[in-house]
Amino acid sequence: MSEPTGDIGLIGLAVMGQNLILNMNDKGFTVIAFNRTTEKIDHFLANEAKGTKIQGAHTIEELVAKLKKPRKIILLVKAGDAVDEFIGKLVPLLEKGDIIIDGGNSHYPDSIRRTKELEAKGLLFVGSGVSGGEEGARYGPSLMPGGSTAAWPAIKEIFQKTAAQAYGEPCCDWVGETGSGHYVKMVHNGIEYGDMQLIAEAYDILKRGLGLKEAEIADIFTTWNKGVLDSFLIEITAEILKFNDDDGEPIVTKIEDRAQQKGTGKWTAIAALEAGMPVTLIGEAVFARCLSYIKEERTRASKVIAGPQKDIFRGDKKQFIDDLEQALYASKIMSYAQGFMLMRETADKLGWNLNYAGIARMWRGGCIIKSVFLKDITSAFDKKPDLESLLFDDFFNKALHKAQPGWRRLIAQAVLWGIPTPAFSTALAFFDGYRSEIVPANLIQAQRDYFGAHTFRVLAGKENATLKAGENIHVNWTGRGGNVSASSYSA
Amino acid sequence: MSEPTGDIGLIGLAVMGQNLILNMNDKGFTVIAFNRTTEKIDHFLANEAKGTKIQGAHTIEELVAKLKKPRKIILLVKAGDAVDEFIGKLVPLLEKGDIIIDGGNSHYPDSIRRTKELEAKGLLFVGSGVSGGEEGARYGPSLMPGGSTAAWPAIKEIFQKTAAQAYGEPCCDWVGETGSGHYVKMVHNGIEYGDMQLIAEAYDILKRGLGLKEAEIADIFTTWNKGVLDSFLIEITAEILKFNDDDGEPIVTKIEDRAQQKGTGKWTAIAALEAGMPVTLIGEAVFARCLSYIKEERTRASKVIAGPQKDIFRGDKKQFIDDLEQALYASKIMSYAQGFMLMRETADKLGWNLNYAGIARMWRGGCIIKSVFLKDITSAFDKKPDLESLLFDDFFNKALHKAQPGWRRLIAQAVLWGIPTPAFSTALAFFDGYRSEIVPANLIQAQRDYFGAHTFRVLAGKENATLKAGENIHVNWTGRGGNVSASSYSA
Repeated sequence: MSEPTGDIGLIGLAVMGQNLILNMNDKGFTVIAFNRTTEKIDHFLANEAKGTKIQGAHTIEELVAKLKKPRKIILLVKAGDAVDEFIGKLVPLLEKGDIIIDGGNSHYPDSIRRTKELEAKGLLFVGSGVSGGEEGARYGPSLMPGGSTAAWPAIKEIFQKTAAQAYGEPCCDWVGETGSGHYVKMVHNGIEYGDMQLIAEAYDILKRGLGLKEAEIADIFTTWNKGVLDSFLIEITAEILKFNDDDGEPIVTKIEDRAQQKGTGKWTAIAALEAGMPVTLIGEAVFARCLSYIKEERTRASKVIAGPQKDIFRGDKKQFIDDLEQALYASKIMSYAQGFMLMRETADKLGWNLNYAGIARMWRGGCIIKSVFLKDITSAFDKKPDLESLLFDDFFNKALHKAQPGWRRLIAQAVLWGIPTPAFSTALAFFDGYRSEIVPANLIQAQRDYFGAHTFRVLAGKENATLKAGENIHVNWTGRGGNVSASSYSA
Repeated sequence: MSEPTGDIGLIGLAVMGQNLILNMNDKGFTVIAFNRTTEKIDHFLANEAKGTKIQGAHTIEELVAKLKKPRKIILLVKAGDAVDEFIGKLVPLLEKGDIIIDGGNSHYPDSIRRTKELEAKGLLFVGSGVSGGEEGARYGPSLMPGGSTAAWPAIKEIFQKTAAQAYGEPCCDWVGETGSGHYVKMVHNGIEYGDMQLIAEAYDILKRGLGLKEAEIADIFTTWNKGVLDSFLIEITAEILKFNDDDGEPIVTKIEDRAQQKGTGKWTAIAALEAGMPVTLIGEAVFARCLSYIKEERTRASKVIAGPQKDIFRGDKKQFIDDLEQALYASKIMSYAQGFMLMRETADKLGWNLNYAGIARMWRGGCIIKSVFLKDITSAFDKKPDLESLLFDDFFNKALHKAQPGWRRLIAQAVLWGIPTPAFSTALAFFDGYRSEIVPANLIQAQRDYFGAHTFRVLAGKENATLKAGENIHVNWTGRGGNVSASSYSA
């Protein structure tokens, strides 16, 4: 048998898989392609892969035999059982130090489990987020690999050359341990939900609030795309709003307003609740899609519930649009700050050493949320790798102080108009809560102690003989019920 | 052996269990008490239960032997393994038709499982929410039993007599199948989180916004407690605010502003995300507790982030306080509407026949959220048992139209002041979204189709030759990428 020549193997020849293979081939790597239905391999080799160095394998044994050691095999199959099934088939054929990479949309707990299982067998596992869709896969995706840290030196060159390049650097770096690659991809998707919801609210305000037409709104987005909001999603929004049907009507006005979702936003919101981190903007973005989905109920409600009388806008339109840009920008800063808080908290809990500057760098290009904004986040973490929150970074701190007046005016106006701004509003509420040394949770603690004897702690500086620092204190609020604290009622 | 005389058995003599036994005894039932640590039984019989008809059992066998058939045994033990452990011990001793009741804070999926497991063995299972804390257990809790429907006639009298009575009716009725009793209790607790957060925001606005002192704020809550907000939580808030430390300072100002939580609010928010129902207010209430919890980070942030310049309030204070009352009331209507939407959706998915009027009736008294408001919700569902949403009920519809102007003014003012109102704001955003026939989710669908070829549906009334009703439509937005829709990228 001849010496193996394959740099990397890939299982799963759906569009994403094929495109990633072609991309890696373009970057000079020899890829061995395998698919469960083998006709697909032959078809791929005879068509898209014709004239390239790409080789096929018709069995898993052949795939493994054709790979140089340590072997690297990417799975791009349906998340779930199919991943475990292929891992099960590969394991007996592999040797110590070989690397299995899952590039699918797996949920991070599965990647945590798979890392442990494969490491116990002397193999290495990488769970890598892949973002950018089909086009990203073909010409440069954002790649977020995490898992067995020992695998990184062996895959680094292939991954970083295959990834998108932004500002002269690859949109790929090592994320961290076990399931962190898929975790970070999940948070990326959650943030994407947030960005899309913010843009949708801005569109709604311009349309229903200012009464602008799609073409006029497109121009505003085009202008914004030259400033702080410069990003893929703002760019395509302008293109979408300009895209007319054959009758000259913007096609967006003919699209049903029921947003679908595939679950990664929901995963992020649930992860936030589990972690106890206030990732409110993604939560609202997911719920806004849910509310959009019950369109028939909304339609019935619209017939029986009147909003406020809405006067024609008589203010300064230019100022208003500037306020809206600032509101969108500031809300976006909040959303990313929340996302990084969530990653930090989870990393602390699970013992991951996350590379925050690297994460921002990976997101700067190749993926749906790519933006100039992420360049600034990268700088913030490059300056201070253990930055507690984006709000503490000088650049964003200044940006927020500048944005604040317009952000507030904009929301106040939308509230009076009756145009829903769940994401803008929650972002501001978070901002105002986050910068409050004292929030009214003291009353909540008092209520919990009143009705359930759940106890409270004394505020620093207010200690005295009965209110002692570090103690769980119960007050006999009613004179009844005694002084015994209880744990029987869960609230 | 003598004829058994026990009407019901209870396992678990912590405070809740003891109080529930004493309560059932007061209502004329013979209760057999058992506890794992048997000394507790003797102590209870010699003290709290002295002179009553309450009997002890020192083994599970004795407990079972002392019960009339069909036997009814309530578990009031720690949720989780302890419940399964006692069920496992009871099953071999019980006969067809006997009833095991779990009155602990179990998570509803466990109650779904236990119903199935016990019914497969010919036994009956009831998972019952018990609310009202220790005092409720002693003098009349809100009881929310669900599970094996065949069990209801056998336990109805005991449950309804033991429960609180409100407006001449018991705060207990049959909820529905399998885990529905614990599900409804979970939603109750989630709603309780929401109510508490709304009250906390009102307190914050009066304190930081209007600059009022706790005693003045207490008077406002006392006044509100005579109107539409009349409820246990408003009542105790007034009492808390009036409760001074020995130095004359309100003790609430000495309580640390870090709200704790035991998880049922989080469960509700996660259940809402899983069900795809926009239960935004509970979500924000849970996240607000999370944000309160990171007090050190907030304190650091407060030093480097300035809010808006806040002028002294020069408006009409009376009007402002009325607006706040309306904002609180309207937001509360939204929260309960969301909670009932969640229960409806879950009932549809799991095939439960939920008794909505009964649920509102159960919550009218005995529990933490008891209120006049729940009397009105009961009326709404009594009038129309399949009411789609509280917003469609005449009474609440009128109330919302009346509340709307003040609600909007209040939020706009808080936004300009820089006082966080996450719950008020999300309630209004939900209201404005719910009453919108068109929301901007059409743009989100267009974006998803643009970057991921996820397809969209055409808006009713906008169909044409290429935009066909009922079809998943993909547009070749860029002229690149072809017309093939994809399912590879999850967003």
